[in-house]
Amino acid sequence: MSFDVLQEKIRKVKNPTVAGLDARLEYIPPQLVAGCFEKYGETLEGAAQAVYRYNCDLMDALQGLVPAVKPQAAYYELLGWPGVKALADTIAYAHDKGYYVIADVKRGDIGSTAQAYAEGWLGKSKVGGRSIAPFDADCVTINGYMGSDAILPFLNIAKEEGKGVFLLVKTSNPSSGELQDMIAGDRQVYTVMADLCKRLGAGSEGQRGYQALGAVVGATYPAQLKELRRRMEQTFFLVPGYGAQGGTAEDVRHAFDRYGWGAIINSSRGILCAWKKMENGAENYQAAARQAAEAMRDDIKRFVTIV
Amino acid sequence: MSFDVLQEKIRKVKNPTVAGLDARLEYIPPQLVAGCFEKYGETLEGAAQAVYRYNCDLMDALQGLVPAVKPQAAYYELLGWPGVKALADTIAYAHDKGYYVIADVKRGDIGSTAQAYAEGWLGKSKVGGRSIAPFDADCVTINGYMGSDAILPFLNIAKEEGKGVFLLVKTSNPSSGELQDMIAGDRQVYTVMADLCKRLGAGSEGQRGYQALGAVVGATYPAQLKELRRRMEQTFFLVPGYGAQGGTAEDVRHAFDRYGWGAIINSSRGILCAWKKMENGAENYQAAARQAAEAMRDDIKRFVTIV
Repeated sequence: MSFDVLQEKIRKVKNPTVAGLDARLEYIPPQLVAGCFEKYGETLEGAAQAVYRYNCDLMDALQGLVPAVKPQAAYYELLGWPGVKALADTIAYAHDKGYYVIADVKRGDIGSTAQAYAEGWLGKSKVGGRSIAPFDADCVTINGYMGSDAILPFLNIAKEEGKGVFLLVKTSNPSSGELQDMIAGDRQVYTVMADLCKRLGAGSEGQRGYQALGAVVGATYPAQLKELRRRMEQTFFLVPGYGAQGGTAEDVRHAFDRYGWGAIINSSRGILCAWKKMENGAENYQAAARQAAEAMRDDIKRFVTIV
Repeated sequence: MSFDVLQEKIRKVKNPTVAGLDARLEYIPPQLVAGCFEKYGETLEGAAQAVYRYNCDLMDALQGLVPAVKPQAAYYELLGWPGVKALADTIAYAHDKGYYVIADVKRGDIGSTAQAYAEGWLGKSKVGGRSIAPFDADCVTINGYMGSDAILPFLNIAKEEGKGVFLLVKTSNPSSGELQDMIAGDRQVYTVMADLCKRLGAGSEGQRGYQALGAVVGATYPAQLKELRRRMEQTFFLVPGYGAQGGTAEDVRHAFDRYGWGAIINSSRGILCAWKKMENGAENYQAAARQAAEAMRDDIKRFVTIV
């Protein structure tokens, strides 16, 4: 099962973090961008090439240190279809290098449309007599506002393919409470979503006990993180909000169980843009990224010991 | 303002419907698919070409009859990046033919990520010294589970570009009530979303009074549709669920104001797959689509008169 694979990759490097690949052009050292513009012109193709190459260099630098990468689809769609091609190429490269890939797409649709998204991102597309995996991510993020119709098609494909899904439960952003914290009956809306996540995921547990339906729970609301960890013992957590958004290592420790298992913490800009904070960083962006990833791992290790 | 443009296009053809372009390969006449496979192989490229060509033929057939098209991103992503290229090409062709384009992407993310989605789908991408519109849709659908952080970046770009946004409020699917119908304080969750939609959209009204932030409200819950129409007088509605999902013309009439304005009703499979229900339909798919679109228009006209 997918989260068994993820947990094993985490255990191997003793590092429960995922590097977000959210490459805006501004996050890429200028000489890399300039080189691609020279070759492909100031075009979406040129920009997409710069993103892809930076991603590859980062993944080379972080190998053996970080177990997973999380490309954020928005930054690729920002570059049109050449950007989406760069995303597909990034996923393929990540697999070559042994990374677990979480496609952060937050898709939310119903029935046959959700089915199409799930086949596209996790499964296979039937093309005449052939079956082709269009993106082949190991895991996707999804949005459950539309209810179980928007969740089950993803979960079913994930089960078939031995892959995983993270459902948005309590997000890390300042306005997440506008809807998610409202009291609905005897529970808050995010708790309703948490219970839906648990209920739909039941029966999909892997060897380590995690359901194939995980949850996104933000680092910026540590009390809720703690509460949800207790409420959802068999749910793997993807935790955004560490670093730039204000979540600390002390906050995110609540995401883990007693073995230091069951969660992965994301950092995007902290790693991507590390070169900007280093002297001569633009020339040494790989070293900068590696140092930032090591610092994050060590920061979290102060509070979490992985068995 | 964008919904002024849409309302004017609707008024011109006296037809408040939008043709969903959700082309799965199974929905396309087999000889079209076979021709593309012959030329491009049984590949994602071949499949994407079939989708694009079918879309173009449909748009040729529906010109002057239907004012808008709504490609559903899922079916394009199902064909990987070649599919996403077909989507971009479909939008460009739709504009050539004078259609208003609603990109049904239901994106939901926050802050700079939402900004990237909004720039990608509605706005422009800065590439070196150039500004390029990657998809250039007139309007997108979005998901507000994450709160106003997930709405404002889209609304702001829409205002800048004179474009529109539809926020999911009450969706048409069977399980939409699992979350949306829960009582949160003194209101249901979908009403909370409706009020958020109204509040954030305030100040973005066009000449006809519609805010740049519209709402998705399903045809399958006519009581809620009626209630929301009263609650959100200045909100343009996108109404899915007519036809295959069970919504009738009598149900959708509640979406319109007294002038027959302020809403557009979607049909996807009813038009796309019309050829399957017609004798020799595969050879006459354009006529079949046109007849289905005319039948839908006439069905709705029994209850709605557009001034």
